[in-house]
Amino acid sequence: MAKPREFEKPTGFRDFPPSLAAKKRAVEERIHRCFERWGYQEVITPTLEYHDTVGRASAIPEEKLFKLIDREGKTLVLRPDQTAPIARVVGSVLREVPVPLRLLYHGSVFRAQERSAGRNAEFFQSGVELVGEASPEAEAEVIALAVETIRACGLDAFQLAVGHVGLLDGVLRQAVADEGAVQELKESLGARNVVGFFGLLERFSLPDSVKRELTSLLQVRRNPSELMCLNLVTSSPETQAAVERLSAMWSSLADFGVTPHVVLDLGLVGSLGYYTGIYFEGYTASLGFPVLSGGSYDQLLERFDRPLPATGFAVKLDRVMEAGGVPDMQKRRVAVLYDRSQRPEAILVAERMREQGHHVVLQWRDDQGGHPSDEWLALFDEVIRIGEEEGR
Amino acid sequence: MAKPREFEKPTGFRDFPPSLAAKKRAVEERIHRCFERWGYQEVITPTLEYHDTVGRASAIPEEKLFKLIDREGKTLVLRPDQTAPIARVVGSVLREVPVPLRLLYHGSVFRAQERSAGRNAEFFQSGVELVGEASPEAEAEVIALAVETIRACGLDAFQLAVGHVGLLDGVLRQAVADEGAVQELKESLGARNVVGFFGLLERFSLPDSVKRELTSLLQVRRNPSELMCLNLVTSSPETQAAVERLSAMWSSLADFGVTPHVVLDLGLVGSLGYYTGIYFEGYTASLGFPVLSGGSYDQLLERFDRPLPATGFAVKLDRVMEAGGVPDMQKRRVAVLYDRSQRPEAILVAERMREQGHHVVLQWRDDQGGHPSDEWLALFDEVIRIGEEEGR
Repeated sequence: MAKPREFEKPTGFRDFPPSLAAKKRAVEERIHRCFERWGYQEVITPTLEYHDTVGRASAIPEEKLFKLIDREGKTLVLRPDQTAPIARVVGSVLREVPVPLRLLYHGSVFRAQERSAGRNAEFFQSGVELVGEASPEAEAEVIALAVETIRACGLDAFQLAVGHVGLLDGVLRQAVADEGAVQELKESLGARNVVGFFGLLERFSLPDSVKRELTSLLQVRRNPSELMCLNLVTSSPETQAAVERLSAMWSSLADFGVTPHVVLDLGLVGSLGYYTGIYFEGYTASLGFPVLSGGSYDQLLERFDRPLPATGFAVKLDRVMEAGGVPDMQKRRVAVLYDRSQRPEAILVAERMREQGHHVVLQWRDDQGGHPSDEWLALFDEVIRIGEEEGR
Repeated sequence: MAKPREFEKPTGFRDFPPSLAAKKRAVEERIHRCFERWGYQEVITPTLEYHDTVGRASAIPEEKLFKLIDREGKTLVLRPDQTAPIARVVGSVLREVPVPLRLLYHGSVFRAQERSAGRNAEFFQSGVELVGEASPEAEAEVIALAVETIRACGLDAFQLAVGHVGLLDGVLRQAVADEGAVQELKESLGARNVVGFFGLLERFSLPDSVKRELTSLLQVRRNPSELMCLNLVTSSPETQAAVERLSAMWSSLADFGVTPHVVLDLGLVGSLGYYTGIYFEGYTASLGFPVLSGGSYDQLLERFDRPLPATGFAVKLDRVMEAGGVPDMQKRRVAVLYDRSQRPEAILVAERMREQGHHVVLQWRDDQGGHPSDEWLALFDEVIRIGEEEGR
C-alpha cells in the first residue's frame, strides 16, 4: 500500500482524537464545576479582537500574535490571552454591573510558534478573574481557588509558588540604583538562572550586606513577616506596605487551609507584563512547567476606562492532561447489532439503554458482506446481537 | 459623567455575558449528552487550517473566509465549517480506525460578514458525522438523532424537511436539457422563490405534463414511493434508485418513530456544495431560519484519500437559543458575608455549602466603607451574614 498522503495542519496546531477530546472535556468540566461553586460566572469573548484594543493590552510579544486584516482594513488578532478581552468586557458590556465581579472563562488562546520550537500555537485555558477588590482576602481567595482547582483535576502532589512583582521590583531598586541592572537581575530570575543572578550581583560590585539580604529574600518560603528583617524592605514605605499586604494575605491563606500547598518564592517573575502585585505559578510533581499561573494587576482595567484592581489565574488544560491529572475518561460503549428484519426491536433496545445513560451505537448488520468488521466490533466494550440464536 | 469610550469588537463578533454564556453551556451540554448516548465520540480540530487543505474543501465562498499568512508564507483560514476538518481527521489521524465512525464536535466556525449585514462572523455549531456507511439505516439514524437533539434542547414544535440533492438534480435534468436552466431552477428553489420557479418553467416553454410532474414532485410530503408515479423519475435508473433509497430510509425513520416530525421537501436545496444525497433542515415554530441542517456527502472524503460515504448535521447553537430552546439557566447564587474576625467561620460555611453543590461567593465586608454595596448584594438570591446579630 502506498504511503498515505499527509494532510497537514498549520505549525503548532493539533487534532484531538476521541480519547484526548474526552479527557479535555472531563478536565474542563471539573474545573468549571469548581469555579461555579466558588460563585464565578462564565463570560465568552470572541476569537478575534482588534489589535488596537486587545492585542496591545495583552502583553504578548508582537511576533507571537496571529494577525489579519479585516474587510474594513483594520488589524485583527487571534486572542493571545483571555485576561485582556475580559478587561474589555468589564469596561463595556459589564460596565454597569457593580463590583466585585467574579468571572470565569474557557477557551483557546493563540501564539505563533516557529516550526522548530515544536510548541503549541493554540492551547486551551480555563481561568477566573476577581475584579474590583484589592483586599488580601480577594488575593487569598484566588490562590485558594487555584489550589482547589488543581485538586479537582485529580492532581495531589503539587505546590503553588507565590511571589510579588511590586515587592521584587522595589527591593531590587533599593539594591541597585540603575534600572538596566534591575532588568538584568529580573531576567536572570525569570529564566530561573540562579548562578547568573549571583554572577550579576558580583559584577555590580554590591556591598556584602546587600548580597546577603538578596540571598535571604530568595530563601523566605513560608512566613512573609521574616522579610521585615531586611533593610532592603524596611528602608522604603512601598516595600514595607507590600510585605504587610503579603503577610495579611498569608494569614487569610492559612484560614483557607491551603498553606501546606503554598510556598513563597520572591524571586518569581511573571511572564506577562501586566502583573503588579502577587504573581503565582502552580507546579505538579510530574511536570517541569506550571499547570497554572496568575496574579494581581492594577493597571490593565484602566485601559478600558474602569480603573479597578483585579486578581486572576489561568489553568493550562494541556499541562493538566500531561501531568496525568484526570484518568482516561473514555466511557463504556455498547454496540447493538441487528438484521434489517429486527430493526424495530433493535431500536427499542437501544432507546431503553440510552435512557439509562449508556452510550449505545445501533448498527445494521449485513452477514453476507461481513459488515461490520470484527475489527470494528473489537472497539466496543459490549456487543449485543438482536435476534440471534443463543450461542451463535 | 462622560459617555464611556466604546471598546469595539470586530464586525460580527460578540461577547456573551454570564446570562448568555450559561445558556450556551446548557444547550451544548444537552446536545453533547444526546450525541454521546447515541455512541458518537468527540473530536477537536484546530481553529486555523491550511487554505489549500481545508479552506478549498469547505464549500464556503472565498470572500467569506478569514485568511491570514503564517510565518512560512502559507495561507491559513479560520475554520469556516467543521465537516471538512473532520474529513481531514478521518483521512489522517483516524485513518487506521475501522468504519463506520461516529464522530461529534462542538466549536466556533467563522464567516466574514459585511458590517451592514449585521450577521454573526463567529458562531457555535455542534454536530455529528456518521462516516463510512451508506445504508438507509445510517441516513435514518442521523435524521432520528437530529430529531432527538432538537427535542433534547427543549424545542417541541419543530419539523425536519428532507430533500435529496441527487434526486432533484436528476429530475431537473430530465425536465430541461440545458445545465444552465437546471442551475437557474435550483437557485429559485434554493431562494424559496416558488413564483420565480414556476415563472422559469413558463419561460423554458416546457410541456404541460412536465410542469405538472414538477409541481407534483414538490408536493410530495410523506410518502416517497408516490414519486414512482412520475415519468421524470422512472425514465432514469439513477432517479429510480434514489427514490428506492429514499423509501427505504423513510421506512427506517418510521421504525425510529420520528416520522411525525419529518416531511419530504424535494425542492430543498442545500447551501453547502458537498451534499450529494439527502439534505435536511430542522425548523422550529418560532424561527424563520433552520436550527440545524445536514445531509449525505459521497465525495468530500475522497479529497482526503479515504473515499467513503458519510452523513452528518450541524446544530446552530445561537438559533437554538433564539428559538427559546433552553430556559434561563442562571443558577441560584449565594453570598456569604463576613467581618475579618469571622473569616475562619465564614470559610467553613462556604465550604460546606459548596460541597452540597451550591454556588457560593465568599465576600469580606467592610461595614465602615459600605463595602460591598447594596446594589451588589441585590445580585444574589440569598445573602448569609456570618456573625451578625439576629435582625440586624
